[in-house]
Amino acid sequence: MTSASKSLTAETLIVQEVAPRDGLQIEPVFVPTEAKIALVDALSAAGFTRIEVSSFVSPKAVPALRDAAEVFAGIARRPGTVYVALVPNLKGAERALAAGADEINLVMSASETHNRANMGMSCEASLEAFGHMVAAARGTRATINATIATAFGCPFEGPQAVEKVEALVARYGDLGVDGVTLADTTGMANPRQVADLVRRTLARVPAERLTLHVHNTRGAGIANVLAAHGAGARRFDAALGGLGGCPFAPGATGNVCTEDLVSLCHEMGLETGLDLAALIGLARGLPALVGHEVPGQVAKAGRPCDLHPAPARKAA
Amino acid sequence: MTSASKSLTAETLIVQEVAPRDGLQIEPVFVPTEAKIALVDALSAAGFTRIEVSSFVSPKAVPALRDAAEVFAGIARRPGTVYVALVPNLKGAERALAAGADEINLVMSASETHNRANMGMSCEASLEAFGHMVAAARGTRATINATIATAFGCPFEGPQAVEKVEALVARYGDLGVDGVTLADTTGMANPRQVADLVRRTLARVPAERLTLHVHNTRGAGIANVLAAHGAGARRFDAALGGLGGCPFAPGATGNVCTEDLVSLCHEMGLETGLDLAALIGLARGLPALVGHEVPGQVAKAGRPCDLHPAPARKAA
Repeated sequence: MTSASKSLTAETLIVQEVAPRDGLQIEPVFVPTEAKIALVDALSAAGFTRIEVSSFVSPKAVPALRDAAEVFAGIARRPGTVYVALVPNLKGAERALAAGADEINLVMSASETHNRANMGMSCEASLEAFGHMVAAARGTRATINATIATAFGCPFEGPQAVEKVEALVARYGDLGVDGVTLADTTGMANPRQVADLVRRTLARVPAERLTLHVHNTRGAGIANVLAAHGAGARRFDAALGGLGGCPFAPGATGNVCTEDLVSLCHEMGLETGLDLAALIGLARGLPALVGHEVPGQVAKAGRPCDLHPAPARKAA
Repeated sequence: MTSASKSLTAETLIVQEVAPRDGLQIEPVFVPTEAKIALVDALSAAGFTRIEVSSFVSPKAVPALRDAAEVFAGIARRPGTVYVALVPNLKGAERALAAGADEINLVMSASETHNRANMGMSCEASLEAFGHMVAAARGTRATINATIATAFGCPFEGPQAVEKVEALVARYGDLGVDGVTLADTTGMANPRQVADLVRRTLARVPAERLTLHVHNTRGAGIANVLAAHGAGARRFDAALGGLGGCPFAPGATGNVCTEDLVSLCHEMGLETGLDLAALIGLARGLPALVGHEVPGQVAKAGRPCDLHPAPARKAA
């Protein structure tokens, strides 16, 4: 396992930055390869121990990430940081391993309907494909994470039975993956549900191997992260600027915003090991990179400690 | 006291809608009086038991709310709903009482610097003025709420000592006010701080008389509301669409968003007594009213239960 497990106290929160992958994959503009590399390098310098760098998907399906291999080849690897690649299938896994990904992140949905729409196959077929991908990664130095998308609800089917998600976690364990991600793919989760599913999952997966992937689609992202943390989760995906989005919700926010989450954690005394001022600086550069405003708030408002000069006193 | 106290269980959350006052006061456009009245009436119909209707301030200071008396005169009063007016001084209190406000909401800041900038006087002078306003309201049928602005931090001074805020709560009690609001005026609070100050305040003020006023300036609004609820608070200000804002953070979000909060509460099984579908409909009409997009997410993304048709299946 990764170095993230070395000091995972109750006052720690490990943020895995996913903007280069989940953030950029939905953007209509192609961010130049050099800019992606510079972003990942800047994220490394800001202290992230885990960065999801890109996705080895079909360039037709996600043209924004067609340069995944070039990005992996170009980044400066910070010792102790795990550079992750999302992979949808065996071919993607082989490309990611060849590109030198430290970890491959497999993905399927709890929802049969969502999996068929998103992955083009049944959930059982996805699990079978996982077996081949795990076999491909074994014997390499790469670790394997596997994501359960729509774990907290599916935009087509609605709520997903916790027993179904728990059974998938068990199947993932049988396959021998190193880590599991519970994903609230379209921001349907609520804090009570999150705390319940986290507690159930921690019965099977130790905290240093469990990641929560939370979207802020309905404004509950940070509340869900804090609920998961209260229930024992320690590792969270987040995206700089709150990049990302939801194909079913035009105008909705994307992933939970890294710098908003990190600012709040630091205010609460939770340790992230991250350089918040650097994150805010990077987030302020995102609109120029993607061509539009981004949802993150702290980059606009500043940290709570960034005080303002008092205005001239009103006449009494 | 109000009817809000009749069934204040741990699974209840009373939302006081403040968009007509805190939402509109910062808007550069003047929303026509008829539109304001229609909004308040629609909010009454959606089930709010408390609505902050307007502010009896100087029309020069806040031209957007110069029609406070006309709005009070024009609304249809729903039995059981408390129609509140913010008042900055004795003259405002007298005007609000004459206009038939059910409750006047007095306001001063915990921060001396903020109070001088915002109210044009020292905190001690504000407390003295409170005495005159309380005297004016006594003998009328109106109840009196008093707000502590910047209770969780001041944009000029920074953190405020909890002892100072507690002392103000005690002074408010000595003055004989009916209710107290702790306000995070510029969104500086964090959940641990909120839970602590709520617990301390509940030692002096019963839950049915305490309101939390939370801004989402740094994305933590809903997390702070849930932390306060977990600590025993039951009454919360929120603004439709997340209207409102912060003069020091251009582009930042405003008050915690009513429909986002209510949606999440209902998902968690918390009762608000509010018609969420009606709120979403109203929120979707706000951009036409104020001339710009508003921060609320659920009006864009729909409720979690608003499912989408599955797309055509991909080729395997």
